Amino acid sequence: MRIQSAEMRAKVMTAAAAAQLIDSGSTVGMSGFTGAGYPKAVPVALAERIEAEHAAGRPFSVRMWTGASTGPELDGALAKAEGIEFRLPYNSDPVAREQINSGRMQYFDMHLSQVAPMAWQGFLGPLDTAVIEVVGVRADGSLIPSSSVGNNKTWLERASKVILEVNSWQSEALEGVHDIYYGTALPPNRVPIPLVRPDQRIGEPYLAVDPDKVVAIVETDQPDRNGAFTPPGETAQTIAGHVLQFLDHEVRMGRLDESLLPIQSGVGNIANAVLGGLKDSRFRELTAYTEVIQDGMLDLLDSGTLRMASATAFSLSPEAAARVNSEMAKYRDRMILRPQEISNHPELIRRLGCIAMNGLIEADIYGAVNSTHVMGSRIQNGIGGSGDFARNAWTSIFTTPSTAKGGDISTIVPQASHVDHINQDVQVIVTEQGLADLRGLSPKQRAKAIIDNCAHPDYRPMLEDYYARAQRGSHGLQSPSLPAEALSWHQRFMDTGSMLP
Amino acid sequence: MRIQSAEMRAKVMTAAAAAQLIDSGSTVGMSGFTGAGYPKAVPVALAERIEAEHAAGRPFSVRMWTGASTGPELDGALAKAEGIEFRLPYNSDPVAREQINSGRMQYFDMHLSQVAPMAWQGFLGPLDTAVIEVVGVRADGSLIPSSSVGNNKTWLERASKVILEVNSWQSEALEGVHDIYYGTALPPNRVPIPLVRPDQRIGEPYLAVDPDKVVAIVETDQPDRNGAFTPPGETAQTIAGHVLQFLDHEVRMGRLDESLLPIQSGVGNIANAVLGGLKDSRFRELTAYTEVIQDGMLDLLDSGTLRMASATAFSLSPEAAARVNSEMAKYRDRMILRPQEISNHPELIRRLGCIAMNGLIEADIYGAVNSTHVMGSRIQNGIGGSGDFARNAWTSIFTTPSTAKGGDISTIVPQASHVDHINQDVQVIVTEQGLADLRGLSPKQRAKAIIDNCAHPDYRPMLEDYYARAQRGSHGLQSPSLPAEALSWHQRFMDTGSMLP
Repeated sequence: MRIQSAEMRAKVMTAAAAAQLIDSGSTVGMSGFTGAGYPKAVPVALAERIEAEHAAGRPFSVRMWTGASTGPELDGALAKAEGIEFRLPYNSDPVAREQINSGRMQYFDMHLSQVAPMAWQGFLGPLDTAVIEVVGVRADGSLIPSSSVGNNKTWLERASKVILEVNSWQSEALEGVHDIYYGTALPPNRVPIPLVRPDQRIGEPYLAVDPDKVVAIVETDQPDRNGAFTPPGETAQTIAGHVLQFLDHEVRMGRLDESLLPIQSGVGNIANAVLGGLKDSRFRELTAYTEVIQDGMLDLLDSGTLRMASATAFSLSPEAAARVNSEMAKYRDRMILRPQEISNHPELIRRLGCIAMNGLIEADIYGAVNSTHVMGSRIQNGIGGSGDFARNAWTSIFTTPSTAKGGDISTIVPQASHVDHINQDVQVIVTEQGLADLRGLSPKQRAKAIIDNCAHPDYRPMLEDYYARAQRGSHGLQSPSLPAEALSWHQRFMDTGSMLP
Repeated sequence: MRIQSAEMRAKVMTAAAAAQLIDSGSTVGMSGFTGAGYPKAVPVALAERIEAEHAAGRPFSVRMWTGASTGPELDGALAKAEGIEFRLPYNSDPVAREQINSGRMQYFDMHLSQVAPMAWQGFLGPLDTAVIEVVGVRADGSLIPSSSVGNNKTWLERASKVILEVNSWQSEALEGVHDIYYGTALPPNRVPIPLVRPDQRIGEPYLAVDPDKVVAIVETDQPDRNGAFTPPGETAQTIAGHVLQFLDHEVRMGRLDESLLPIQSGVGNIANAVLGGLKDSRFRELTAYTEVIQDGMLDLLDSGTLRMASATAFSLSPEAAARVNSEMAKYRDRMILRPQEISNHPELIRRLGCIAMNGLIEADIYGAVNSTHVMGSRIQNGIGGSGDFARNAWTSIFTTPSTAKGGDISTIVPQASHVDHINQDVQVIVTEQGLADLRGLSPKQRAKAIIDNCAHPDYRPMLEDYYARAQRGSHGLQSPSLPAEALSWHQRFMDTGSMLP
């Protein structure tokens, strides 16, 4: 029985009934991070209610806060219903993305570490309702967190009323995996966060909630949005090879030992290729201090190369999710899920000295990185935690194929059309062409390294030509540029479908 | 007697003799932060030596690391001699700036909090010689720090050899003002920095140095580069008025109390106007956790509005410097000078919840800020500590007049020509036209607030026109933009001398 408290059991109702408790114009804080642990029934029921209201000619929308990305039953359903007027902090749902890029949804794309502190700070306004998926409710009313922690602690504390979804699909063996730190505060009362190792537990395994605030509990039995695992292709393998060679070089230089430092890795093909490469490497007793535990990390845990992983969520294929659920006893001591304000906290990332590896949309010749806006205006997903990690990392590595759209886009451009990571926060750029180690270089030294090592041969002569002319026509020569031409590649792509002339 | 140790006294020599100990091609770590506490004799002697070598047809240059900006006897003299091949982390010297912008000096403009940790990390290479100004040498060989701390602790630890300048111009009463924290380490051995209040001392009042590494001591009696204080003009006063009104509003909303939170303030006219305004405000028992103590802060300390100030350096007018030197007994308990890795540490700025106030060169309609590069390419000074503070602050405020160059430049532009602070790190923008509170807004909401409240009336219709057309012609509508036109105002200024058509 997933709901051990009789008082809480009395609050069980249908998703449709629970959705009636959410008002138009209110702010809703939902659980969910990278497609894990998001509520799956109430958002769908709310979307149905919104569609009915709209059909009756009545406006209805909510302001929505989450952990990060969720799934089609949440962002997808509510966006399709045109029910989200404002959303923070990260989205990867295609329907919501289309709403945002057509100007119909306001989207505040923010650093993931700052969501909880800013919600406490007050300027985001009050949080009316929290909708949180949990694995179970204990006899004392405390909650067993689900496959992501995200901002759940904060939503439960800040919301006026709470709706819980108890999802039987989630393994009960998740109990004990979580570490919920209750020591945060607003200044001037903030104190050091005591974490000094990735495997350290500094909090409680359960989420607390004021039972009087719980207005509804909905029972579900639905899987997380677990996408199929795609084996990394040749380009990803080549990029991973460069990354591993760099890490090996750092060990040989005596700047790292064979256990490296805690790894942060984004998701996707290249990340999986790097993790796969680590499995066959000289590195041993690795740790991860990161946002999500994906298939590649599970394999590393199995092989013993990775000693433990700290994150805020899972992001697994259906096969890997089944493996985790059935063998949790094996993993429980080697995984910790934390609130995202802890998994992404600058204080902790800097202290632990993470090796950060993230993807990008484009980088310019000075190393400024655009992680979010295609052609400077169309949002892909969001900045997520990349800024938390890149600025505070021991080494900040960005990876990308050198071209996109079958060669019509160069990911190395004269000037980034939008900047998420300033050149100071980008230390290493890797494409299948090679690796540019930018640490300690001036802008002009960086430009040479990036053009020579990272650009695709189809675009390298164009970048060399631009850079040579910029050195003659620039206003100043710290970071030579030609404003009239710096974004012309993007305009050409918009006009012709290719950055090539 | 400033040198109490007989062993150290035996190492006194002329600046010219000391300069002979610095090799061409070596890396030199100099003291100095914002024109305070930099060595004043050895760099001049080194510049003379370099000029002689060059006249004899022999190449001679050094790689130079500092705390931040220094003075004409250091950056000015060495740049004039073309003796600096590479420099980090911040420069405001006009001669060095010209060298950089003409492409003759490589300049690595980096976050000030990261200089010491990166010097330890190793990829910057070895540090050969430290040249450090001190107030005195104690009998036990420890050093009384001067009017700035900067990276001196790290330079003294990392350098193979050390040259000290003992400057009698600096007040002996500075003894006891400093707090040198010796608890930093490389990961995985980093631990929480125990500071929880701006007035807390967590270290030692003296700098340690291995006496065997000290190869020379030079005695000087020269003032810091103390620029004259310019009373803030009308524009600065108007901007300051908006800032004070905002802070007052935050108190009325219950998000701050009348002691606010620790203030970080850049230098210059607007900063002085804000500090002047605080003196006559309702705010009481203020604290500062900042980089420099400037005239305006001294006045606030005198009036009692400011309870105490923590910084890494002084930046005073000659009159204020004389006041500090003669009345240090009065100030000593209310001022602390720390290493810049502590004054600027993200962990501490976030924990304390600083109210950050910095200037800018230009901001775009989405709030991305360019603090460094005029027309995207010509460096003014550097990013300094603005990134350390802006990203981690309780509230990050940027101030600027709405135009520059007599109206020929709009500081609000369609797109920033260089980005130092991404829009997520810019919460409030203030010009004499008004204040845009961007907290929690989507990009399109931000654009409206910035154009409406901050742009100059001469440019506002141009921005409105651009933004309206961007909403029609953009690739996506999260952050509407027209790449072909986004930097056209900068090109127009380069071509015609004005951003106006």
